[in-house]
Amino acid sequence: MSKMILHEDPISGNCYKIRLTAAHLGIPLERREYDILAGETRTTEFLSNVNPNGRIPVLQIGDRFLPESNAACWYLASGSHLVPQDRFDQADMLRWMFFEQYSHEPNIATLRFWRAFVGEERLSSVQRAMVPAKEAAGDDALRLMNDHLEGRQFLVGSTITLADICLYAYTHLAEAGGFDLKAYANILAWLEVVRLQPRHIAFEDA
Amino acid sequence: MSKMILHEDPISGNCYKIRLTAAHLGIPLERREYDILAGETRTTEFLSNVNPNGRIPVLQIGDRFLPESNAACWYLASGSHLVPQDRFDQADMLRWMFFEQYSHEPNIATLRFWRAFVGEERLSSVQRAMVPAKEAAGDDALRLMNDHLEGRQFLVGSTITLADICLYAYTHLAEAGGFDLKAYANILAWLEVVRLQPRHIAFEDA
Repeated sequence: MSKMILHEDPISGNCYKIRLTAAHLGIPLERREYDILAGETRTTEFLSNVNPNGRIPVLQIGDRFLPESNAACWYLASGSHLVPQDRFDQADMLRWMFFEQYSHEPNIATLRFWRAFVGEERLSSVQRAMVPAKEAAGDDALRLMNDHLEGRQFLVGSTITLADICLYAYTHLAEAGGFDLKAYANILAWLEVVRLQPRHIAFEDA
Repeated sequence: MSKMILHEDPISGNCYKIRLTAAHLGIPLERREYDILAGETRTTEFLSNVNPNGRIPVLQIGDRFLPESNAACWYLASGSHLVPQDRFDQADMLRWMFFEQYSHEPNIATLRFWRAFVGEERLSSVQRAMVPAKEAAGDDALRLMNDHLEGRQFLVGSTITLADICLYAYTHLAEAGGFDLKAYANILAWLEVVRLQPRHIAFEDA
């Protein structure tokens, strides 16, 4: 593989997913840090050279740039033990990764970002109006995971996959968004299983 | 492959993606229709037997159920000419599919649904407050695609992939959400390229 650089902000769970995937696979990543809150991913230089979408993470592979955290995880893990070979299980793993981006991250990660980093008093009136719907949808996502995890150690199959890594990132930080994980016993058990995997790295150490 | 049943609502672009993928691959799909607006995906039976998330589409394969439209497309197309074998291109295809679910569908498809099916007068006050942000974010997504398509026929590589199929679905319906596609010449040319592919099926005939 070409040399890889992760363009990231350490406060972002989406960036942590990629570092966690790389740690599981023993792949070295060079890291380049940007401060989202200071607008460092909206500069002309970032938009022209790294990602016209103005978002991190971006995984740079040689001189090519790959945005979207879950796509970067796929790039790193494709062909490894983190991606099931079985056709259904592989698609089912992606199903959880799409669920993460559509039903989980926009609620659970966004409320964490608003509450722990932006500050509720600095939200716009539209953002403030969206809070109750994001709380309800975040709890729906957690309930769905919790029900699915009944009697299971992992989201797909019997070993850790990218589905677990990608959903671990913001689920284990959900309390900073105001979610009460004590209501979700299967999720708490699963977080512990993921945390105890060999080669796991913690968010704060990542 | 086992017999496959698509649980769907014909008004949904997410369901159309799966029918379009299947058409490109010559895979027969049995179809079972639900009326989202009449709440038919929120019945106890649907939630227990098809998808606890209460959403369509769901691709049923034998007695297993696969939610998330883009995961269903992956299941059908994995190993086919619609998925690049090159490691970067494959991840880049998924990048566009995650972009579709995170930055495109929640704006462009949601405004179409609100305006063409729910009706603006029946939106909640929170939904109404979200319209300007969704219009702006939808235009950001279209601009990003339009810029990327400069000098390209397809989103990834030189042949059609799932990235094109998944983004075609709601992009070609964007005007029903109030977006003006005439502002995006490269998108208009790309829509035509996708539409003229052998085995293409139109939304209304699908």
